Amino acid sequence: MKFRLLTPGPTPVPEETLLELAKPVFFHRTPEFRQILGEVLEDLRYVFRTRNPVIPLTSSGTGGLEAAVANCLPPGGKAICLIAGRFGERWKNLCKAFGVESVNITVPYGQAVRPEQLARALADHPDAVAVCSTLSETSTGVGHDIAAFGKLVAPTPAILLVDAVSGLGAMECRTDEWSIDVCVTGSQKALMMPPGLAFVAVSDKAWKAIEKNPNPRTFYFDLKKARAKLEGPDTPFTPAHTLIRAMRASLKRIRAEGIENIWAAQARNAVAARAGFQAMGLELFSDPPNNALTVVKMPQGIDSTVLLGKLEKQYGLKLANGQDDLKGKILRLAHMGYIDQFDVLAALSGVELVLGDMGHAVEPGKGLAAAQRVFAEGVKIG
Amino acid sequence: MKFRLLTPGPTPVPEETLLELAKPVFFHRTPEFRQILGEVLEDLRYVFRTRNPVIPLTSSGTGGLEAAVANCLPPGGKAICLIAGRFGERWKNLCKAFGVESVNITVPYGQAVRPEQLARALADHPDAVAVCSTLSETSTGVGHDIAAFGKLVAPTPAILLVDAVSGLGAMECRTDEWSIDVCVTGSQKALMMPPGLAFVAVSDKAWKAIEKNPNPRTFYFDLKKARAKLEGPDTPFTPAHTLIRAMRASLKRIRAEGIENIWAAQARNAVAARAGFQAMGLELFSDPPNNALTVVKMPQGIDSTVLLGKLEKQYGLKLANGQDDLKGKILRLAHMGYIDQFDVLAALSGVELVLGDMGHAVEPGKGLAAAQRVFAEGVKIG
Repeated sequence: MKFRLLTPGPTPVPEETLLELAKPVFFHRTPEFRQILGEVLEDLRYVFRTRNPVIPLTSSGTGGLEAAVANCLPPGGKAICLIAGRFGERWKNLCKAFGVESVNITVPYGQAVRPEQLARALADHPDAVAVCSTLSETSTGVGHDIAAFGKLVAPTPAILLVDAVSGLGAMECRTDEWSIDVCVTGSQKALMMPPGLAFVAVSDKAWKAIEKNPNPRTFYFDLKKARAKLEGPDTPFTPAHTLIRAMRASLKRIRAEGIENIWAAQARNAVAARAGFQAMGLELFSDPPNNALTVVKMPQGIDSTVLLGKLEKQYGLKLANGQDDLKGKILRLAHMGYIDQFDVLAALSGVELVLGDMGHAVEPGKGLAAAQRVFAEGVKIG
Repeated sequence: MKFRLLTPGPTPVPEETLLELAKPVFFHRTPEFRQILGEVLEDLRYVFRTRNPVIPLTSSGTGGLEAAVANCLPPGGKAICLIAGRFGERWKNLCKAFGVESVNITVPYGQAVRPEQLARALADHPDAVAVCSTLSETSTGVGHDIAAFGKLVAPTPAILLVDAVSGLGAMECRTDEWSIDVCVTGSQKALMMPPGLAFVAVSDKAWKAIEKNPNPRTFYFDLKKARAKLEGPDTPFTPAHTLIRAMRASLKRIRAEGIENIWAAQARNAVAARAGFQAMGLELFSDPPNNALTVVKMPQGIDSTVLLGKLEKQYGLKLANGQDDLKGKILRLAHMGYIDQFDVLAALSGVELVLGDMGHAVEPGKGLAAAQRVFAEGVKIG
């Protein structure tokens, strides 16, 4: 059986990148590696849509978030955390670990924090030093209006920290234009790589906050130390350099395709996935949904744990379940990175077939036809 | 030209492990991955010679050291740092970053801290909460007598933290028997893997210190949180799971060979390398030298930067230079991981040839013969 990984991280990796991973290990303090790292950082700036330095870290995405909090937020400072799911909660927990007071703007899972809620929080807390948000909230599939958040935060003394781990490279994200001060992503989502690397883009305003912070409270994730090495380019500690070499291949693919074309293709895939699921009688969980993944509720009497188990066992399709309280209640389909429109079709086909087996009868092909209409007609973006 | 990576990290990786790295990406929250992670952690306990839990981290070795300091050492506490090179300095710098007072016992680079120096420091500082040492000091090639250090520290309230990043798996290291409380290593040295993973073995005494510490001052490297996930086994954040899958292959190789046989083989390779270099008229830099790498001084008028450049360009042999002030003055040859006795011969042959080219004439084969006698006669260990 052919296996298809369609979870919102880890995601499938292109074959040419996998082959790079199998190449012999080389030494990293050389002009050859500096060349590779330089290309990777330049291509990342392209993907981030930023002219700011992008710092590479050897860690999970959460390590990148820790770097943001530890370096930028002084102990006793106040951060407004926008919480629409597990990864919004992570910002709050990071603040707690680093002695930062968090003002929590929480919405029910499945909804997004609205710009007017942030505006009110900023008015109520003019002393806030930061606003922490997610771009794509991976646990629920909602997307945040980061462009609007940026407009609200930019005129204030606060900096805007964005967890773009599962969004960057799949959905529109313009770091500089949207005034994102610290934008964090990981290798294993839309960037078409296995996990192990995190990347942090840092604005001038954020560097000023970092310089004012008396102590980064981390040695390994010290962003100033990392910035000092960027000229090489080099890293303060041994990086996962074979991952960086492989990442070059994935980034070349992304750059050849063009990031705006990728945003458009994944937007179309997202609209097609939503249309397909809705045609099967499934309801969207996310309001508003984002373009990196589609999350739908289960119909009455269907447990997503059972459905997902059958989908994998019978058809080799690996989609994700809900987490914690949402387990069994939703399913999550990724369309990011090396997942394309025909992979989305495969997922819709499989879900339709299994739903039928489980007693939620759907006219065969109804979901597929709905998706196909989207592919045929195209989608207007932006 | 055939390339041979003979630096003390990164080191070469067995072909079967490289092929594992090229396998398609899979999902990590599954029974299959828990099985893989369980095997890896069990095999690591075997390599560490410990019954304590081993915590896997997605980071460089320095991330593992940060986990040790952040979790175990309370702010304002006092740590005795044994400094015989760059990696001893790293302990000191980590203490500084985390507000820990360091009492520095420093010896000239090329020498090791002696047990009597530690005994005196412990007597002078009965309030020390920790002793921080390196097993193999990668920057100078000296080895520390960790067994003796363990005997001195065990009866005190302090815990013994050991940076075994470049030593573990190459030279004798008995975590439990030697009373090492926190033993840290990385994937890219003797464990035959690319960089990207760190591992931390934690004793009961260290867990008590961690529990007493009011705040781990890290979220990503929180060892208590990681321990809570070990039962699965699982990890708090997305691990570099494709590296962990590949690591299983390298650990199976290590386990099949037997760790004590590996220690013996690398001890023999170390003795052979020393004998070979000395027969060429080169002097050892390290006193005492360790069995993970051999470091020698350059003869009058020979710059190691030039020698190493020729060695790589003419013969594909990549050895390491000295760092900082030692650059140009020493060379460092690794014998750890997937580097074997014939790789050591290749290095000796290449160095002899290039030294001849550079005007330091050596009778051809003199170094090789000295090494060969060691291979023929064997070496008594322990």
